[in-house]
Amino acid sequence: MIIDFDALEEQEIPNFKGGDGSVSAAAHVDANNRIMRATVHPHSSIGWHQHLKNSEIVYVLSGTGKVVVEGGEEPLAPGVCHYCPAGSYHSVVNDGEEDLVVFAVVPEHAALS
Amino acid sequence: MIIDFDALEEQEIPNFKGGDGSVSAAAHVDANNRIMRATVHPHSSIGWHQHLKNSEIVYVLSGTGKVVVEGGEEPLAPGVCHYCPAGSYHSVVNDGEEDLVVFAVVPEHAALS
Repeated sequence: MIIDFDALEEQEIPNFKGGDGSVSAAAHVDANNRIMRATVHPHSSIGWHQHLKNSEIVYVLSGTGKVVVEGGEEPLAPGVCHYCPAGSYHSVVNDGEEDLVVFAVVPEHAALS
Repeated sequence: MIIDFDALEEQEIPNFKGGDGSVSAAAHVDANNRIMRATVHPHSSIGWHQHLKNSEIVYVLSGTGKVVVEGGEEPLAPGVCHYCPAGSYHSVVNDGEEDLVVFAVVPEHAALS
């Protein structure tokens, strides 16, 4: 099946996971996967949270920012892939002046990595 | 963690899943996810196969082609997202004249969708 993000309703989420500002996302969700195109607006963030029985894979489409992880920070730019394995924590921060747009998948797993 | 596809060894796979020509892929693999950047070369394909306890999410980075699914065909172009839920079959075909480059995730799940 094709997931047409432009045809999905975009949800605006203020203070997502306790972060700053707002994030908007168009998502296809079933029992196994949340598949989304998400926009972290300038000076906004997705707060620090853990992925337990799921993981998250983020591929940057446009914009810049950073991911805060347990060991430090990872810069985000177009074409960068960030992976938060099951069991890990992260926070996504747009500290730039343009939208940070990502393609992201949150799959549900049976086990920790 | 950052997955740097340019730093991973790219594997060239002829007749992948019984398809035509060859596919090359740089992949990060753990117990829960196969995360890859794959190139389906012109006149090449990934053969018809089923995803059973995993699924596949494909996001087209460049090039064109199509996915053959149980109900027909889905055109691929940059920015298109194809989803093969657990339990479904698909085949990816590059019937164009340039490389079809995709970002793809194959997550392992406990259950069918």
